[in-house]
Amino acid sequence: MSDAAWLAALLRVEAALALAGAGAGIVPDGAAATIVAACTTVEVDIAELSAAAAASGNPVPPLVELLRAAVPAEAATCVHKGATSQDILDSAAMLVAYHALGPLIGDLRGAADAAEALARRHRDTPMAGRTLLQQAVPTTFGLKSAGWMVGLDEAVDRLDAVRTTRLAAQFGGAAGTRAGLGDAGPELARRFAAELGLADPVLPWHTTRTRPAELAGALGEAAGVVGKVARDVTLLAQNEVAEVSEGAPGGSSTMAHKRNPVAAVSAVGCAAQAPGLVATLLAAMVHEHERAAGAWHAEWFPLRELLMATGSAAAWLRACLEQLEVHTDAMRANVDGLLRVLGADVLGTDVLDVGSAVVLVDRALAERKLRVRA
Amino acid sequence: MSDAAWLAALLRVEAALALAGAGAGIVPDGAAATIVAACTTVEVDIAELSAAAAASGNPVPPLVELLRAAVPAEAATCVHKGATSQDILDSAAMLVAYHALGPLIGDLRGAADAAEALARRHRDTPMAGRTLLQQAVPTTFGLKSAGWMVGLDEAVDRLDAVRTTRLAAQFGGAAGTRAGLGDAGPELARRFAAELGLADPVLPWHTTRTRPAELAGALGEAAGVVGKVARDVTLLAQNEVAEVSEGAPGGSSTMAHKRNPVAAVSAVGCAAQAPGLVATLLAAMVHEHERAAGAWHAEWFPLRELLMATGSAAAWLRACLEQLEVHTDAMRANVDGLLRVLGADVLGTDVLDVGSAVVLVDRALAERKLRVRA
Amino acid sequence: MSDAAWLAALLRVEAALALAGAGAGIVPDGAAATIVAACTTVEVDIAELSAAAAASGNPVPPLVELLRAAVPAEAATCVHKGATSQDILDSAAMLVAYHALGPLIGDLRGAADAAEALARRHRDTPMAGRTLLQQAVPTTFGLKSAGWMVGLDEAVDRLDAVRTTRLAAQFGGAAGTRAGLGDAGPELARRFAAELGLADPVLPWHTTRTRPAELAGALGEAAGVVGKVARDVTLLAQNEVAEVSEGAPGGSSTMAHKRNPVAAVSAVGCAAQAPGLVATLLAAMVHEHERAAGAWHAEWFPLRELLMATGSAAAWLRACLEQLEVHTDAMRANVDGLLRVLGADVLGTDVLDVGSAVVLVDRALAERKLRVRA
Amino acid sequence: MSDAAWLAALLRVEAALALAGAGAGIVPDGAAATIVAACTTVEVDIAELSAAAAASGNPVPPLVELLRAAVPAEAATCVHKGATSQDILDSAAMLVAYHALGPLIGDLRGAADAAEALARRHRDTPMAGRTLLQQAVPTTFGLKSAGWMVGLDEAVDRLDAVRTTRLAAQFGGAAGTRAGLGDAGPELARRFAAELGLADPVLPWHTTRTRPAELAGALGEAAGVVGKVARDVTLLAQNEVAEVSEGAPGGSSTMAHKRNPVAAVSAVGCAAQAPGLVATLLAAMVHEHERAAGAWHAEWFPLRELLMATGSAAAWLRACLEQLEVHTDAMRANVDGLLRVLGADVLGTDVLDVGSAVVLVDRALAERKLRVRA
Repeated sequence: MSDAAWLAALLRVEAALALAGAGAGIVPDGAAATIVAACTTVEVDIAELSAAAAASGNPVPPLVELLRAAVPAEAATCVHKGATSQDILDSAAMLVAYHALGPLIGDLRGAADAAEALARRHRDTPMAGRTLLQQAVPTTFGLKSAGWMVGLDEAVDRLDAVRTTRLAAQFGGAAGTRAGLGDAGPELARRFAAELGLADPVLPWHTTRTRPAELAGALGEAAGVVGKVARDVTLLAQNEVAEVSEGAPGGSSTMAHKRNPVAAVSAVGCAAQAPGLVATLLAAMVHEHERAAGAWHAEWFPLRELLMATGSAAAWLRACLEQLEVHTDAMRANVDGLLRVLGADVLGTDVLDVGSAVVLVDRALAERKLRVRA
Repeated sequence: MSDAAWLAALLRVEAALALAGAGAGIVPDGAAATIVAACTTVEVDIAELSAAAAASGNPVPPLVELLRAAVPAEAATCVHKGATSQDILDSAAMLVAYHALGPLIGDLRGAADAAEALARRHRDTPMAGRTLLQQAVPTTFGLKSAGWMVGLDEAVDRLDAVRTTRLAAQFGGAAGTRAGLGDAGPELARRFAAELGLADPVLPWHTTRTRPAELAGALGEAAGVVGKVARDVTLLAQNEVAEVSEGAPGGSSTMAHKRNPVAAVSAVGCAAQAPGLVATLLAAMVHEHERAAGAWHAEWFPLRELLMATGSAAAWLRACLEQLEVHTDAMRANVDGLLRVLGADVLGTDVLDVGSAVVLVDRALAERKLRVRA
Repeated sequence: MSDAAWLAALLRVEAALALAGAGAGIVPDGAAATIVAACTTVEVDIAELSAAAAASGNPVPPLVELLRAAVPAEAATCVHKGATSQDILDSAAMLVAYHALGPLIGDLRGAADAAEALARRHRDTPMAGRTLLQQAVPTTFGLKSAGWMVGLDEAVDRLDAVRTTRLAAQFGGAAGTRAGLGDAGPELARRFAAELGLADPVLPWHTTRTRPAELAGALGEAAGVVGKVARDVTLLAQNEVAEVSEGAPGGSSTMAHKRNPVAAVSAVGCAAQAPGLVATLLAAMVHEHERAAGAWHAEWFPLRELLMATGSAAAWLRACLEQLEVHTDAMRANVDGLLRVLGADVLGTDVLDVGSAVVLVDRALAERKLRVRA
Repeated sequence: MSDAAWLAALLRVEAALALAGAGAGIVPDGAAATIVAACTTVEVDIAELSAAAAASGNPVPPLVELLRAAVPAEAATCVHKGATSQDILDSAAMLVAYHALGPLIGDLRGAADAAEALARRHRDTPMAGRTLLQQAVPTTFGLKSAGWMVGLDEAVDRLDAVRTTRLAAQFGGAAGTRAGLGDAGPELARRFAAELGLADPVLPWHTTRTRPAELAGALGEAAGVVGKVARDVTLLAQNEVAEVSEGAPGGSSTMAHKRNPVAAVSAVGCAAQAPGLVATLLAAMVHEHERAAGAWHAEWFPLRELLMATGSAAAWLRACLEQLEVHTDAMRANVDGLLRVLGADVLGTDVLDVGSAVVLVDRALAERKLRVRA
């Protein structure tokens, strides 16, 4: 997500464009090879590029200039051929997202795996179920963990679907018409997408922002699930509840006794940044005509921040759950207190019947086994 | 989306619960029939119910009281059996959403159909392509319309997927364990979902808010697409551009000459309300433990507002596009102005070659034909 | 905030306009009196008005028609004279906001008063201070309450300032020029604002949305403060903490033993709806030219929802704090547990020295006394 | 807003704390001087510090370690004395904001000055007033510019008030009680705030987030005003309208004829990022107890992004307006077209009477002169 990663993606897109142009017969093979080579060797001063970007409103024009200067004159005219700045930036953004989603989904899966392990180990470990932050009736820590697992798996499913089917290359040229390419257009677009490992859309999507919107929505969903699980951990870790603690708690600059659930707290903090960023990306879907007068520019930072915030949230949660220490004695003590209250209640004689909870845990575990096989 | 529609949904859910309970053998058939009947005949004063809702924080407890009072004593104990307030409200919300999505998706499809007709009719009608609100190079009105069509279809795809696969019944009881039901739990849940025409989830999802989140995301995406198309219409309808006008423009309270593109303007205004509501729903995913202390309550109004705003936006856009008047002469005059500028430009001799645009239009139309068949 | 309240405000604005027109000499006194009378007697079917509003995109044109039909022909031409729909709607919105802020600020003040009483009563009642949801070092419940009080007072200050200085009448005519009024314009505008009890702005603010933005920001701030206090209450009311409970807790539809902190939970739930609505209103500040093509329409519902959500949050919190039961014994027991840990800690011998906290409480109480006098 | 600026602010805050501690008599003068010196000379590797921050969840503990290692043992115990991490970070954030607001407000004022010059020069330059993006009745470019000016000035007023009165030092110690300081607490806090040039709050505000909320609201308001003005410029710069153009338009990577209003487009793009960030900061007001378990951490990035986005928006707009080229001939041609339509309209004979608009311009200019004097 660094500036360097963005620059690398921009260059990889220009290289893919040259190769696709060669494949479609509008760029000589030799020129394409030269451009591809230049894309890996050109030296770019990121600060200078940023400064130069101001003149045209985006970094592609000065980058294209650098590339043109880096190749022989006959190849220079083939750099960026048929493309417009937005083609390069949008495709690079999808590439950056594709790569960022790899470890992000990995961390969500890791967190779900850790939750599964907790669900399995504690499928019938009784604890107080709590509604509106009040003890309600008993549940098991296994069922709570299974709920976390299912939520995380669903977030993974959605992100995976977006990653596989909705991240597409963008290639439309000056106004999205692929002007001048005629029948070579579809061929070039197909090869361009294949080079980048991205989907080839029916039409250029430069002003149809359903793809960034679905990416944003899926990230927001993932962040929300992470936030829920992490919030639960912070609540269970309260001294007065003491049912879990983090394996590597954080210290305090002033209080030696503190065992702060830093991973969960950090996950909550990262996840909370997502909804506002999703809103920005959805609001920025309203692109005017063939290129937006601002809405496109409004996407770049929020998308980066959203990928970073959600990615960090997922990583923190995975670390939290993989090392989570579960205090079954405290769970038992708390649920015993609840049982004493419930003794006089309507729920019948065997108030600690957690069988129904176990039925649910087993079902969720069985379904997950099927998922993994499929 | 009215209060009455919500009430009807709540009653339908209580009726489905009774029937499912009977099917699962925990409610006598006669009691179930009585309850189902009461759900259609009970008289509820919505204002009184709202007032009574304050005591427990939601309208289900007083509604359950009304139902219990409306049936014989032996059936009264079977009302709401095994359920908690959230089961009823969440399931009702999904039901309301399911029904609201019907006409909403219909309007989006209608708008996409209208866009397809425009794309077909104007596949090679030249017009100025505009980037950053500046004339760039020629495109066709067909390609612009095809872009609208594809965006609308993608929004429909996503909403349809959410509607069909992600709107699920919620049934978990007091703390989501289905306490006391044991092996009857899965059977009851399955029947309950089937009665409601909703999916039967692996686990109760009372604190796993991926489903409302995906619904919100899909609505936000749809609103964004609608906003884009409607904004384009308002821009094309400017007097100085004059390339389209609405078939039923709005008048002004003071200016007799005004031909306001009221449908497009209203669509823009409705669509703009979605992103903030999506953010609220995503932020509200962080539910504590087995029932949230506020985050759940925070969902109700935003979900209603989001369904209404997106639904209205879709309806306005459909009306706008179905009656859109296209002024090809103005398009031609504007593009001719552009061509005069481009004459001295780099694009070559046949500057009005819109062949590439037509290639794209035809591809999009062909793909849509396949979609409809599939 | 009801539809009826909105209608009443619209009619009051038309009446004020007629009176101001008379004062400025552009409406005969008799016609003005007739119009004012019609504004109180005209019968309006809200459902019909809403339906008619669709044609022009807002309810003012059909309302003006009703008024014109309700007065003699010679007065009919004086109805709505010099104004445009937005003048009426914006001024009515400010009027609605002005009146809604009365009880809203009253409830915030009431909540602050209740917090002050708690701060005074418990200025040196020791309790565990908690950071990152972990017990940290002792504080007093008085200091916690004083923090609530200060936050609520600051929210009041800001809302009060907005209410008094930033809610302004809007009067600009068709395009904000007060066309045709010449030198009578300022006089009419001054009288119009005075009639409504609103500020008279330097310029019409129809497309300068700083005023709704500041209102939204102040409401968002208030909601945030309410959310913080209410969240604290829900955390303190957890069974395992048990340091406070609500005086009128809510019951559960299934669990007789539950003592849900319904007021605090509802306050949290209402407050959580504010940030997204504020975002919508801020995003809607971008009004095109002399009247927005959608951004204006996008304000109406969010403003209403924001006033309602924040108002409800404040009312719930006031009810919560005014009846809050404080369990000093539980506070003492929890802090004693902390002290045992801290005994081996670095903080020195007198670990229960709450003197510093009391210094702060006393300062905050003294400052508040000064505020009230001033 | 860079990492280096943040680090410098953190060190300045630790230095101020040492000095204030000396003034309050709890740190020896010599130790304070040593610490102050170390704060300017200590070498900090920002990447290492970031990595070390993960352990405790924020960068202050490792920074304090570095400082302690950089001073003699007797001074080491006086580093960070009485403070907690949040005291340092919150105070540094306010310091960063204070300094960022200087040029930001300067740019807004510069933009308002440029708008004033346009208003003065074009007070009676007729142009078409446009509502719902349709020509309505004539206005003057002076009135449009005066509206921009008033909006920008109001945003400045609000930001100025927040900067001067609401940016406060934070000093509360481990749990906000200033534990162990007793009567020295107020003195230390007063001196600490004075050293930093920030306000001294009645109470520590570590969990009362009204201050960041008001800062966020004021920035959101400013961004909204900038967005409105910049959007107007992009609309006026359309080829078909052609009433303004930017003095230093941007080129295109593919289209030599393009004169993109890059400054206005960039301003729109930056401003559009604000509302979502404001929502995040408002939602993050809900801090638990004496330090939030995530909500505090959720503020850091959004606050930085919001200052950057709004600051960039203001700078772009100032550049845009200061060099704006106004094409009065095009304004006249467009308004003449409107006048031909209006000729048959109800507005009377002298349809180009812009006198009322000029009355408003003059009033706004006169009021601004008074502002500047006051």
